[in-house]
Amino acid sequence: MSSSGVEKYDIVIVGAGPVGLLLSTCLARWGYKIKHIDMRPEPTLTGRADGIQPRSLDLLRNMGLKRQIMAHEPAKVYEVAFWDPRDNGKGIHRTGTWASCPKFIDARYPFTTLLHQGLIERVFIGDLEKNGVEIQRPWKITGFKNDGKDKTYPVEVSIGHVDGNKAETMRTKYLFSGEGARSFIREQLGVQITHKDPIAHVWGVMDGVVRTDFPDIKMKCTIHSDAGSIMVIPREDNMVRLYIQVASSTDPDWNPRKQATTEEVQASAKKIFKPYYVEWDRVEWYSVYPIGQGIADKYTLDERVFMGGDCCHTHSPKAGQGMNTAFLDAQNLAWKIHHVEAGFADRSILSSYESERKLIAENLLNFDAAYAKLFSQRQPSAVEVGSASADNPRNAEAEKAANSQHAEENEFVKMFKASCEFTSGYGVAYNPNIYNWSEDHPAQSPLFLSEKKGTTKLRTGRILTAATVTRVADANVVHLEQEIPMNGSFRIYIFGGKPDVTKRAIVDFASNLNKKGSFYSAFARSDASEVSYHERHNPHSRFFTLATVFNAKRPDIEIRDLLPEVLARYNDHVYADDVWDKRVPNARAAAHAKMGLSEEKGGVVVVRPDAYVGCVVSLVEGSGTVDALNEYFKAFTSKNLGGDERAQL
Amino acid sequence: MSSSGVEKYDIVIVGAGPVGLLLSTCLARWGYKIKHIDMRPEPTLTGRADGIQPRSLDLLRNMGLKRQIMAHEPAKVYEVAFWDPRDNGKGIHRTGTWASCPKFIDARYPFTTLLHQGLIERVFIGDLEKNGVEIQRPWKITGFKNDGKDKTYPVEVSIGHVDGNKAETMRTKYLFSGEGARSFIREQLGVQITHKDPIAHVWGVMDGVVRTDFPDIKMKCTIHSDAGSIMVIPREDNMVRLYIQVASSTDPDWNPRKQATTEEVQASAKKIFKPYYVEWDRVEWYSVYPIGQGIADKYTLDERVFMGGDCCHTHSPKAGQGMNTAFLDAQNLAWKIHHVEAGFADRSILSSYESERKLIAENLLNFDAAYAKLFSQRQPSAVEVGSASADNPRNAEAEKAANSQHAEENEFVKMFKASCEFTSGYGVAYNPNIYNWSEDHPAQSPLFLSEKKGTTKLRTGRILTAATVTRVADANVVHLEQEIPMNGSFRIYIFGGKPDVTKRAIVDFASNLNKKGSFYSAFARSDASEVSYHERHNPHSRFFTLATVFNAKRPDIEIRDLLPEVLARYNDHVYADDVWDKRVPNARAAAHAKMGLSEEKGGVVVVRPDAYVGCVVSLVEGSGTVDALNEYFKAFTSKNLGGDERAQL
Repeated sequence: MSSSGVEKYDIVIVGAGPVGLLLSTCLARWGYKIKHIDMRPEPTLTGRADGIQPRSLDLLRNMGLKRQIMAHEPAKVYEVAFWDPRDNGKGIHRTGTWASCPKFIDARYPFTTLLHQGLIERVFIGDLEKNGVEIQRPWKITGFKNDGKDKTYPVEVSIGHVDGNKAETMRTKYLFSGEGARSFIREQLGVQITHKDPIAHVWGVMDGVVRTDFPDIKMKCTIHSDAGSIMVIPREDNMVRLYIQVASSTDPDWNPRKQATTEEVQASAKKIFKPYYVEWDRVEWYSVYPIGQGIADKYTLDERVFMGGDCCHTHSPKAGQGMNTAFLDAQNLAWKIHHVEAGFADRSILSSYESERKLIAENLLNFDAAYAKLFSQRQPSAVEVGSASADNPRNAEAEKAANSQHAEENEFVKMFKASCEFTSGYGVAYNPNIYNWSEDHPAQSPLFLSEKKGTTKLRTGRILTAATVTRVADANVVHLEQEIPMNGSFRIYIFGGKPDVTKRAIVDFASNLNKKGSFYSAFARSDASEVSYHERHNPHSRFFTLATVFNAKRPDIEIRDLLPEVLARYNDHVYADDVWDKRVPNARAAAHAKMGLSEEKGGVVVVRPDAYVGCVVSLVEGSGTVDALNEYFKAFTSKNLGGDERAQL
Repeated sequence: MSSSGVEKYDIVIVGAGPVGLLLSTCLARWGYKIKHIDMRPEPTLTGRADGIQPRSLDLLRNMGLKRQIMAHEPAKVYEVAFWDPRDNGKGIHRTGTWASCPKFIDARYPFTTLLHQGLIERVFIGDLEKNGVEIQRPWKITGFKNDGKDKTYPVEVSIGHVDGNKAETMRTKYLFSGEGARSFIREQLGVQITHKDPIAHVWGVMDGVVRTDFPDIKMKCTIHSDAGSIMVIPREDNMVRLYIQVASSTDPDWNPRKQATTEEVQASAKKIFKPYYVEWDRVEWYSVYPIGQGIADKYTLDERVFMGGDCCHTHSPKAGQGMNTAFLDAQNLAWKIHHVEAGFADRSILSSYESERKLIAENLLNFDAAYAKLFSQRQPSAVEVGSASADNPRNAEAEKAANSQHAEENEFVKMFKASCEFTSGYGVAYNPNIYNWSEDHPAQSPLFLSEKKGTTKLRTGRILTAATVTRVADANVVHLEQEIPMNGSFRIYIFGGKPDVTKRAIVDFASNLNKKGSFYSAFARSDASEVSYHERHNPHSRFFTLATVFNAKRPDIEIRDLLPEVLARYNDHVYADDVWDKRVPNARAAAHAKMGLSEEKGGVVVVRPDAYVGCVVSLVEGSGTVDALNEYFKAFTSKNLGGDERAQL
């Protein structure tokens, strides 16, 4: 048993930046016991990361935190402008602009939000406090070992006050490093950083309020001039951030410790902005630091001590990816730890954290290198840029035509498109694995649908497509993809097609769900009889939330007539697919159409707790649909499913 | 001069309900000195008004308060359901539903929001505190007289602690009663209440959390049964409000003091809901009160002591109009007092408060009577209701066709349509007067456009049509009607049509604005040289904010090339009319089209500080446009305009 007298935690989290805070917030909400420390005496005061991608806004909204962040009135970047030297060698001129999240990306929030990291941290900290978690500051980790002396709490962790006058030792199930680039834990583990690109840079970054006649000061801009280059990023409260490259390892006198004063950087900026003037009302923050593109070889050695965020991947700030990648690292790990600890999943699934997130980081670094190249080596012409920004097409058809034309005609546009998907956060695509169904998945039912075969438009490992529907219970027009909060549950969307066509299939689906060995029944709540009448999301099981969407008008859907009890219990998760969508203007049931499902026969979509599509299955009469889902869940859950109990005995 | 030693205020406000709080909030933001008292020891704890109309959400957003209100997660009513006795006499059944704000109303927020009044009050109180105003509680007014002993502060007001142990006397420019139906001030003034409808009612209202199998418990419903009638209103936090008519003056045993216990009302409700069950988890609030439809004969006697809100008009809670009408009373008075006190307008304009708002209250009472009749006397059939709700038309053309068809075919639909406009708040239409241009207005330039003549779609005295545009400075897609906050200024929208067509007209407009005697120059800020570089809304004058909208794509609008200095200074208020709108699918410039202005030549729209359209003028070369506006503003401002100084000497 455990060593007595030592405090025990489910997880010890080191570092209260974005990655640590999001992880902590999720696990605290789900009831885990957390020790969370940070070396800094208080949250970030100025500077640091500040860009929130469209996809991250979806995530923050799904966690119920978006409104608080938007209350700070962040700057919003809808377009990026490019400025280049004039041909006559005098000053700069704009060569073009493009959309930061073009219309071919189906984003609810097609802009990047810019807000000081400290304000974002405080939103998470406020939420943590509601769940009884306080960040212990300024404390640092001083040692740890996975000594297995306690089977349940195998890791011993030592922490100390930064003054060195206080220390604590504890045991924990998990230890997480969200320490940032200089990680004690990564160093202790001996995990190496691989540098992707041999070129390193020293960057100066300056936040402040300026006066200028430069017309694009409220836009994101990349300015190339004969006097150097600058990136302009608008911020909240009339502020603007300027990134200036101070030195590069390609310089003949390269020095990674090169410094530059505020005045020097301002003087450079003034030269670069010519013929426009720029004057500073005040400088809020200024820093110079070297940046290389590096990635940790491993994110964990033992699946007990994990790392994420900047600790695992560093790159240039150009694309504003740091905080967003950190958020998604944390989100990915949070529900997987939850599923293992809550008894839903095999411990082996924890390996998918590294395999999924490291690939994303590698893509990010590749992208970062390409992006840097795009910016510094070849300037898009105005014509190219104009055609790339898919500007305000009059209707979805024209847009589609315009986009496909681009894709065929212009190699540059393809690269741009891929970049936009990436910078908006919608480019995240996890490879096939136990969660993301493919033909190689252990589940082999012929009922699985796939984008490859053209039987659905949904892609496994990709975020669920946004769709607007009407909630039956209260006639509210809602965003279907946001209806189930980030509660750690798999989301099972039953697209019911036309009720009179699928009546039998729905009844069969429900009765097979109710069968003893089904994935749904196998993880029923033990406290089911005490569940509140008003529980909307998890009445029967903590691991699943069910939602049903019919191709019918709202007033024609009588929940109690159309749905068997198990589905009707999710009274607030029954929807009418009766809202017109300009992306599928001719569809009668836009949500069905956007998912690429039959508007008559529907289909069942399984979405992971982090909003990525797991698998898509036909909705058929008989037991086939639930059988297929049993196969799917059997691949990673802790119980044998499908009723054949003996197979595992 | 003034009596020495007595504190002086710009306004004394009695009552901190919706009407008093909104008035106070506006005037505090604009720098006025306020004494604000309320008899209650703290804000509303439970019950009371709770419905916020779509139009009121626009207003709250314009004041920057909507996000804080929505943070409380209010219930949203999109549809209303009607339930009637079954033909077989057993229980009730739904006869139909309709949209609470149908699609023919161009609302940004097509739903009614339901939230406990106390939470709404606290949002205002928080804002007041930021501006240094504290509500003095529990204090009441004990006396007042407009004795004119001080010309600037003509009104003496006495207030006292409700315990009677403290008292204060002060002088003020204005006194406002937001005391509610039982108003000391109204009584002292001897202003009578006229009762519109001789029928009075006693209502029971109960807020609570219920368990039920009634399918529409999260909808707004009117239930008629053989056992009585109920209105169901969903609320935040799983609550529901039930209105039950306890007695009517048409009853043979009518007693306006009739009471009923919680248990009695619950027992009635259970009978009415049959065959559905209903059980209470808890009752949050319960009250029984008599309601008549009454209106005050006057809103002011001397234009120094004003009244508003429930003090002036009482009616049934059925249509959820109380708080919304109160908000608009306060908003209307706030900017008029501001304009007089800041030296912009003649004192005579204060009479328009009563003339505008009393008409609205009369309409409300008429509507309330008709609404009650509609509900209690004739039940719409399912067929009528179905056709009335304009359900999800596939496109704007179809919708238009469908709506015009209704209007021609069905008298009932007309009434429904009028009601929806009213209940959504968009039916408010002020009659022609000095502010709301008509052919009878003193300004007689032939350049005025009017809906009547078909030269614009905008109607004076009506709210500005919503339109989505792209802000040029930062490429943000924005709601044009929300871009200028409620800052007490007239909003001058220059719809610039096509830049190459209107180039000369725009230059002429600007140079005439700059002329010494123009409406714009006449009210220039005296502190113009000290105005912050970052001032967005009032760089030159506190009484005007200018915005320019071009029919051009955003990247093609170079503010400094296209706009003369006076307009270019409003750098953040230059917009591209380049966003497609499904209501005018074929327009190239949707905002121009929605206003009914030429997409080539544009036009100038003057919007009052409360967002209602004042006048619309052609944008022409020469001085004509500014001449017309000078005429318009001359009708109510404190200076002679148009350069002919002698005319008034």
